[in-house]
Formats: sequence, structure tokens, C-alpha cells
Amino acid sequence: MDVTVLKDADLNQLVYNALSFGTAVMLGAFVYFLTQIKSVAKQFQSGVAVSAVVVGIAGYHYYRMWSGWAEGSMNEGYRYADWLITVPLLVIELLIVLGVTKDRRKKLMTTLVPATVLMIGLGYPGEVSSNDGTKWTFWILAMLPFLFILFTLSGELKAAGSRETGEVSKAIKSATTVLLVTWLVYPIAYLFPVIFDVTDGIEATRQIGYTIADITAKGLFGLMILNIAKARSGDSH
Amino acid sequence: MDVTVLKDADLNQLVYNALSFGTAVMLGAFVYFLTQIKSVAKQFQSGVAVSAVVVGIAGYHYYRMWSGWAEGSMNEGYRYADWLITVPLLVIELLIVLGVTKDRRKKLMTTLVPATVLMIGLGYPGEVSSNDGTKWTFWILAMLPFLFILFTLSGELKAAGSRETGEVSKAIKSATTVLLVTWLVYPIAYLFPVIFDVTDGIEATRQIGYTIADITAKGLFGLMILNIAKARSGDSH
Repeated sequence: MDVTVLKDADLNQLVYNALSFGTAVMLGAFVYFLTQIKSVAKQFQSGVAVSAVVVGIAGYHYYRMWSGWAEGSMNEGYRYADWLITVPLLVIELLIVLGVTKDRRKKLMTTLVPATVLMIGLGYPGEVSSNDGTKWTFWILAMLPFLFILFTLSGELKAAGSRETGEVSKAIKSATTVLLVTWLVYPIAYLFPVIFDVTDGIEATRQIGYTIADITAKGLFGLMILNIAKARSGDSH
Repeated sequence: MDVTVLKDADLNQLVYNALSFGTAVMLGAFVYFLTQIKSVAKQFQSGVAVSAVVVGIAGYHYYRMWSGWAEGSMNEGYRYADWLITVPLLVIELLIVLGVTKDRRKKLMTTLVPATVLMIGLGYPGEVSSNDGTKWTFWILAMLPFLFILFTLSGELKAAGSRETGEVSKAIKSATTVLLVTWLVYPIAYLFPVIFDVTDGIEATRQIGYTIADITAKGLFGLMILNIAKARSGDSH
């Protein structure tokens, strides 16, 4: 479950720097989102607050992973603990600013939130296994809720994008692109140790891939959420 | 990649103190900018919030560099990780308060932000190399986006300065001076180990030079941004 540090000193330093970079970006985004809550209309403020909580929690986990890496072994469980908290929250923040009716939002939450928990729970046994068959099995199982969530959310985003006009529609379309592109990084990074021989380079790529995906899926996506909320509040700044 | 502490005890202590000083100034500025967000008109508040995030992130990195120095070796990567996050943000905070049209701002962001990333990415291999030829090559390569950014920004600042009158124009002119003077310190500090024999004195000068440049380019520049925003909000205090 623990990832021990890499023998290649340069690659080891690179992952160390990437984890520190992740910590700094998440905590910076945390402060920024906190300052922006009151800049949107009342009904969207909780969406921006949830964005802040997401990157705050991610910042804590990146700090812990970075500390572990510095001390010689990183607990992979932090990534899954982080996702278990933040991915349902990402779904919730999106639904808050998307402008769906309250009933529809409730229905979407009660199917999508359990699906995210299932997805992450099914991914974990494969991630920590060193057996390729186990990794593939749990990858396929986790991909079922993953695809369900992604199709549902992108469908909602597309519907919302064509329901709206002007700045709001543009902001929703940008959010859709960020969602689709960044989410696809996760299943690919997961498969790196299955497809390739596990070298220091592959392990470094996996760690850095997850870090970049987390920064975009939480930080950049939070910014897209803020843009939607600002556009809806009649303020495009 | 790691800078080990200096043999000269006095110089070593001097750098240690400079890094602690940098941490204190950045975190002080962070708190100050946070308190000032609401003191400017709504459309400039995100600019001041970004200024706060910049010095907050820099404070984190100075704390880490200072801790490393105290323990016997400093990771030079922290400077570059810091610049990779904060330099694009400095460009963004400037564009928010400069009063350019939204379309022009978007266009400037999409050329300048990638240019800052290119500049920092090209600087790093030269910084960590001990070969003078490599250092020169990457210095020249990084100077291309550097000069592009500096010319573009100073052009925008000059145009904005003559578009405006009174307090706003004065505040923009001060910001231009701070930008030009502080940015020029970086390529010079970078070249210190190439031009001179690397002694403890030269290494201390490089570290302290970067620290002073960071304090002015992020802290003092953030204050200039705040002044522009306050002048534009019809409040010159």
C-alpha cells in the first residue's frame, strides 16, 4: 500500500517537487475560493464554498503525501481517502450552479453520490494490488460507475449549456471540456503499471499524472464552477 | 539540484535569515491583502484576492526553503515551483486591474500565461546545471519569452497610464517602474554563478538577490495593484 521512494534520485526529486507543487496549488486555490464566495448570488454561494472545501481537503492530503515521500514512503491510501471525500463534493458543487430544478438535483445527487463512492471503493483494491489480473478486474468494475457518472454529468452539462445563452452557456461549455478531459486521465494513470513494466519512470509518471489530474479536476474545475456562478449572478468578471 | 549550506558560517546565517525574512514578509503581505479585498470596487476584488494568493503561496515556499536550509540542504526546485504558480498569477492580477477590455484581456492571458510557463520551464535546466554552456543556452532561451512578456506588459501599462488621468495614471506608472526594475533582477541573479567563480559569497548573493526580487515582484507589486484598484474605485487611501 505504501509507495517507497524511487531509486533514481532525479525522478524521486521530481515526484517530491510535484507533490509539493500540488500542495501549494491546492492551498492557494482554497484561499482564493474562500475570498470569492460572496462575489456570487446567494443561491450559488454554497457551490463556491464546496469548491473551497474540496481543494482545502486535497491540500491537506497532498501535504501528507509529500511529507511521506520526504520521509521515504508514501501512503497511497491518502489519494483514495481524498477522492472518497472530494469526488462526491465535486458532483454536488456542479449540480448547485447548473440551474437544474430542485427535484431533479435531489434525484441526481441520490444516484451520482453513491456511484462515486462505489467507483472509488472498487478502484482501491486494484490500485494497491501488484497482480495484473486483480488490477484489470477492479479497473473494469470501477469503470462502470465511472462511465455512468461521466455520461450523466456530461448529459446534464450539455442540456444546461443549450438551455442557457451568452456568458452562462460559454462558462458551462468550458466546464464540460475540463470535466471530460481531466477525468479521463485517472483510468489511464491507473493502468500505467499494468501496461508497462514498473520502472521508476512509470511510477513517477503515474504519481505526476494523478497530481496534474487532481489540480485540474479540483482547482481548474472549481474555477469553472466559479465562472458559471459569476455569469449566472450577472457579473462576468 | 539541492543547494547545500555554505561553509562560511556568517554567510550561511545571512542566507538563513534572508529566507526567514522572506517567509515573514510574504505571510505578512498575505494577511494584509486578504484584509484589503473588500476595500476596492467589486470588479477589482478578484485582482486583490489573486495578489493575496501569490504572496501566500510564496510564503509557503519560503518557509520550505528556509526549513531545508536549516536542515543542511535547500531544494532549488521550490523557487521554480513557486514561480510556475505565481508568475502567471502576477500577470493575471495586473490584467484584472488595468482596465483593458474583456476580449483584449482574454487574448493577453492566452498568450502571456503560456509564455510565463515556457520562460520558467526553460530557466530550470540551466539553473540546476553546473555547466556554464548549459546555463548560458537556457538563459538565452528563457530570455526570449521573458522579453516578450516584459515588452507586452510594459506596453499595456504605458497605454493604460496615458489612457487614464490623476491618481489612476500615477498608480499605473508606479506599478510599471516596480515591474521593470524587479523583473530585471532575476536574469542577473541567475548569471552570478556563470560570471563569477562560485564562492560562498556569490551563492549567498544569488540567494539573497532572488529573495529581494521575490519580495518586491510579489509583495511590493501586489501593493501597486492594490493602489491601482483603490484609485479606480475612487479611493486613493
